[in-house]
Amino acid sequence: MKVGVLTGGGDCPGLNAVIRAVVRKGEQEYGCAFVGFKDGWRGAVEGRTVPLGIPAVRGILPRGGTILGSSRTNPFKTENGVRDIKDNLAKYEVDALVAIGGEDTLGVAARLHDEYGIPCVGVPKTIDNDLSATDYTFGFDTAVGIATEAIDRLHTTAESHMRVLVVEVMGRHAGWIALHSGLAGGANVILIPEQRFDVDQVCAWVTSRFKASYAPIVVVAEGAMPKDGDMVLKDGTKDSFGHVRLSGVGEWLAKEIEERTGKEARTTVLGHIQRGGTPSAFDRWLATRFGLHAIDAVHEGDFGKMVALKGTDIVRVPIADATAKLKTVDPALYREAGVFFG
Amino acid sequence: MKVGVLTGGGDCPGLNAVIRAVVRKGEQEYGCAFVGFKDGWRGAVEGRTVPLGIPAVRGILPRGGTILGSSRTNPFKTENGVRDIKDNLAKYEVDALVAIGGEDTLGVAARLHDEYGIPCVGVPKTIDNDLSATDYTFGFDTAVGIATEAIDRLHTTAESHMRVLVVEVMGRHAGWIALHSGLAGGANVILIPEQRFDVDQVCAWVTSRFKASYAPIVVVAEGAMPKDGDMVLKDGTKDSFGHVRLSGVGEWLAKEIEERTGKEARTTVLGHIQRGGTPSAFDRWLATRFGLHAIDAVHEGDFGKMVALKGTDIVRVPIADATAKLKTVDPALYREAGVFFG
Amino acid sequence: MKVGVLTGGGDCPGLNAVIRAVVRKGEQEYGCAFVGFKDGWRGAVEGRTVPLGIPAVRGILPRGGTILGSSRTNPFKTENGVRDIKDNLAKYEVDALVAIGGEDTLGVAARLHDEYGIPCVGVPKTIDNDLSATDYTFGFDTAVGIATEAIDRLHTTAESHMRVLVVEVMGRHAGWIALHSGLAGGANVILIPEQRFDVDQVCAWVTSRFKASYAPIVVVAEGAMPKDGDMVLKDGTKDSFGHVRLSGVGEWLAKEIEERTGKEARTTVLGHIQRGGTPSAFDRWLATRFGLHAIDAVHEGDFGKMVALKGTDIVRVPIADATAKLKTVDPALYREAGVFFG
Amino acid sequence: MKVGVLTGGGDCPGLNAVIRAVVRKGEQEYGCAFVGFKDGWRGAVEGRTVPLGIPAVRGILPRGGTILGSSRTNPFKTENGVRDIKDNLAKYEVDALVAIGGEDTLGVAARLHDEYGIPCVGVPKTIDNDLSATDYTFGFDTAVGIATEAIDRLHTTAESHMRVLVVEVMGRHAGWIALHSGLAGGANVILIPEQRFDVDQVCAWVTSRFKASYAPIVVVAEGAMPKDGDMVLKDGTKDSFGHVRLSGVGEWLAKEIEERTGKEARTTVLGHIQRGGTPSAFDRWLATRFGLHAIDAVHEGDFGKMVALKGTDIVRVPIADATAKLKTVDPALYREAGVFFG
Repeated sequence: MKVGVLTGGGDCPGLNAVIRAVVRKGEQEYGCAFVGFKDGWRGAVEGRTVPLGIPAVRGILPRGGTILGSSRTNPFKTENGVRDIKDNLAKYEVDALVAIGGEDTLGVAARLHDEYGIPCVGVPKTIDNDLSATDYTFGFDTAVGIATEAIDRLHTTAESHMRVLVVEVMGRHAGWIALHSGLAGGANVILIPEQRFDVDQVCAWVTSRFKASYAPIVVVAEGAMPKDGDMVLKDGTKDSFGHVRLSGVGEWLAKEIEERTGKEARTTVLGHIQRGGTPSAFDRWLATRFGLHAIDAVHEGDFGKMVALKGTDIVRVPIADATAKLKTVDPALYREAGVFFG
Repeated sequence: MKVGVLTGGGDCPGLNAVIRAVVRKGEQEYGCAFVGFKDGWRGAVEGRTVPLGIPAVRGILPRGGTILGSSRTNPFKTENGVRDIKDNLAKYEVDALVAIGGEDTLGVAARLHDEYGIPCVGVPKTIDNDLSATDYTFGFDTAVGIATEAIDRLHTTAESHMRVLVVEVMGRHAGWIALHSGLAGGANVILIPEQRFDVDQVCAWVTSRFKASYAPIVVVAEGAMPKDGDMVLKDGTKDSFGHVRLSGVGEWLAKEIEERTGKEARTTVLGHIQRGGTPSAFDRWLATRFGLHAIDAVHEGDFGKMVALKGTDIVRVPIADATAKLKTVDPALYREAGVFFG
Repeated sequence: MKVGVLTGGGDCPGLNAVIRAVVRKGEQEYGCAFVGFKDGWRGAVEGRTVPLGIPAVRGILPRGGTILGSSRTNPFKTENGVRDIKDNLAKYEVDALVAIGGEDTLGVAARLHDEYGIPCVGVPKTIDNDLSATDYTFGFDTAVGIATEAIDRLHTTAESHMRVLVVEVMGRHAGWIALHSGLAGGANVILIPEQRFDVDQVCAWVTSRFKASYAPIVVVAEGAMPKDGDMVLKDGTKDSFGHVRLSGVGEWLAKEIEERTGKEARTTVLGHIQRGGTPSAFDRWLATRFGLHAIDAVHEGDFGKMVALKGTDIVRVPIADATAKLKTVDPALYREAGVFFG
Repeated sequence: MKVGVLTGGGDCPGLNAVIRAVVRKGEQEYGCAFVGFKDGWRGAVEGRTVPLGIPAVRGILPRGGTILGSSRTNPFKTENGVRDIKDNLAKYEVDALVAIGGEDTLGVAARLHDEYGIPCVGVPKTIDNDLSATDYTFGFDTAVGIATEAIDRLHTTAESHMRVLVVEVMGRHAGWIALHSGLAGGANVILIPEQRFDVDQVCAWVTSRFKASYAPIVVVAEGAMPKDGDMVLKDGTKDSFGHVRLSGVGEWLAKEIEERTGKEARTTVLGHIQRGGTPSAFDRWLATRFGLHAIDAVHEGDFGKMVALKGTDIVRVPIADATAKLKTVDPALYREAGVFFG
């Protein structure tokens, strides 16, 4: 049996651990041969491959990134994309595909399987932890760890200067990284995309923290938005209020806080360091187990499925389940965290 | 309502995060007052307390250890232990107890509640992750992270000298730390207490790794034991084979490997560094949520219960469920890891 | 003998280690009493103090920030500032001052000593390592370590997406952090304030790196400037070319690279995480030794001096020497690093 | 010009950084070709080589260990060792050798140059920092960092249980790692090989620490020895008192402390984790600069020399200077640290 492997979407610590586990078990226990498609679906469309076998995956477990490269190419938006994929699978005699990626990559895998009968198994990947049907995805724990360590460092700076420090973390549509790192880092305010925030309320929390003689840390997801329509953002496109973006939410909020409370405020945008580098032990464990179970599914011919974490078990669910709906932060969970605000 | 809080058993990263969450929510949302008992059940027996309130718990979230101190005192093995506890609860006007600890500490809480009607809520704690009724306990993720980082470092030393490196990690009765850190660290052999190991098999794996031109890392739980009866251990007591201990299993195994394979072998015993220091982000998150839910249970008068993690939810289970049976590594899970041996 | 201690200027890991060493040795070996002035020179001017003695400094060694607080107040720019300081030193019966800070803080100490005869000893502090008369200052090693770790993480993201990653690090006037972290992190381009850079040359290096099938990391000090006059910066003031700032140099450069090379480029601005949190072992060692030698100088009445590192020795130099001239990166040293560019 | 490179002696973070810098600058700026000798002098004697050039050294900067392998082979203790080396240098047309190693490796290089006219340049390497003629060697800062982090973790365990924690760190003949990590970690006792220790004095410090309601950390170099002759060590050979070793000094000392003070004491032996894994930023910087200057020396034909750090400069000294005398901890420096004991 010959198995194709590809990784799509944004970089995420643990991708290499999945690849290694798939190949190690596939070759050793099931006698599979492998081929890697370069740069996600793009390599499958264009027929660009990399050799893949046990020697190629030695030593990659602790390394971030992906030895296969990645892209955001969508074959359904590429002319003849699906036909090219079918041709290339035939050309390289690929019997099954393991697609490792997020909503987009898995969405393609689901359609290729459901509509074109291509035997695909999915492995969920998202830093943001916003894929349904799995308790966690690898990469998230690493990102939360990095953000928490940064918040730990910022506390001392805030205290020494009695300043507000606003930390902008990843999370365009879901606030998981903000919520987890904010709680773990002892933030005094946590703002997530799921709930529009009230700048005056934020300022009230900030002020109350100063009254207790401490300096506040405000953790804000990049996708968080104020209730009132005056946020102007940085990318030149108009936001949902019809304003042009001039800055990210973190910088915008720091300015608002300064103006409304009279306290100095500074912003740190953590950015790409959240998604690079060596995966945490938890992510290596999860990614490795995802890989082992994905190749089991291939071996059993259980296609159209995605591996998922439920409690401490790895289970299989229809790929479509994962991509049907974004997993956002439950309001009750966010309220639970609220006891630490202010 | 006045609530007593105590921490018992071995040190564990996250204890302070629990205490902080209990106090913060209890005082702020439920109007509770608090008293800390010093050094676990010993403080409850001897009436030694520390003041506990929001100012006392500020800044302790990222700190390892426990501000309340700990001990292994068991009031049921102390003369008049239970009577003294009842007297002290009366004296300090304590309406409910939050007991944070492992098998022993929680076992006492279960009996105090079930047999003496003392209103207790339990919070599970064990580095070793061997408590039933909860998916994970805080401290475990931190320990696995430290062990994995150590294994990462040892790989390069092993490779540079083409030596075997044996890493002894915690786990007297359960192999969770060995299994998780071994998988995450890319170990070539993992040995756990749940399954007696065959030294010749270990040597075969070691030899096969060298044949692939790599140097092997052997991760062994401190409680792992060989199949054959020749292990002589360090503490002067006789082991289950009737031999006197002269060394830990790591050192013993390194010597055996050297003799049987002719390859140099070295041992590193990670020891106490696995249980100290700042908790990982995951452990701070879990410990904080345990604390919030424990004080909810107190507030609702739901005594005799312990908070537990099920998937991503915090639930309540009878304390007795957690202590009924050690949670050991499932043979299937251990077999799953076996694909990486050798 | 009663000694006043204060910390001024920006937050810097190691400040607490200095305070602890000064107090520990002063109290224990020389029988000194201590008083802390709050928030740098501001506390000395306004007579705001904190009690300082061995109990107050226990446990602060690994903690970032400063227990004394900090500010940028300059008594020479404050009405009656110097007179108020003299009054407060008399009021609190302070016989000598230990001033821990950078160019500004030490400049004040030098003038107070030289012009007003106030007995001061200086301890040099700067993240940026740009103080003359000392090989290194504490805080710098920590900042370089944090930046290097971030660069390590960004490599995998760059490789996975074959993108340029621009990392903006601290250093307004001196490129020490950029140079050290860039070299340690394996950056492909390092840009420092001491040498105007040529955007086309940067693009040539970037392109050459891609040709070798690797993705480039560009480390740029916040104060670096292009040769040609088209940089528009973010703070609304005009830069030296008469343009208004719209963004930091990192963001500006990423856009230029994208436009000129056609390659995707992203920016990460490390910001305040470089100056917060626990100091590195080297910085704790250096800060501790600075503290010990500063109190020796006080004890010996050797005022107007600053402690400094020369090789592995701590020596004393006139405070004025340190503030006379910024220590910038030697062109030869920068050229040496150039072998890794491209 | 063809240059041979080899790494000898114990593993040390930074070896790969040296190799990379030598090759990168040599090939790029001086047009050198390279050959790597496998496993230190052994490869030079046996004629085992690895290809070495810019592609081989890409990506190795952050990796611990050495891509060339290492051994402790001494050609002067090998039959025909020197003749074989000369033959192999001729066979591979090697014009000059860069030898990276400690006392032994450099001692060989010195004799090969001085007695046999073989053109050698040395690069000093020792975790222990005990080589004369250089302020620091790479690997040392990494080791101190790891040990300090471990001590940070052990503090909380010690406090929680009010126990003594003895940490045994590397350093057979010199106490540099113990001194630096002990100071940086806030140890309460530091014991080094340079000064025999008095167990009763250690116990007095331990007791005094407990009186202040803190738990003591004792950092002891593996080569430290008590004043009185009752230490029995672990390796079965007799120690300098004629006793057989049954345990390392850490374990022995913990037992003595328990017996003499009645306080619980535990030992952690850090072992090999101190010498493995990714180098600190400082060590990468130092190792890289050593490499750059070593190939400069080769290019200039300045043989028999070793690169060395003096302050912030890299200088050249006769190799023999480095190996003439062990660099041990100055008694005054050790006394300076004593203010923190107890």
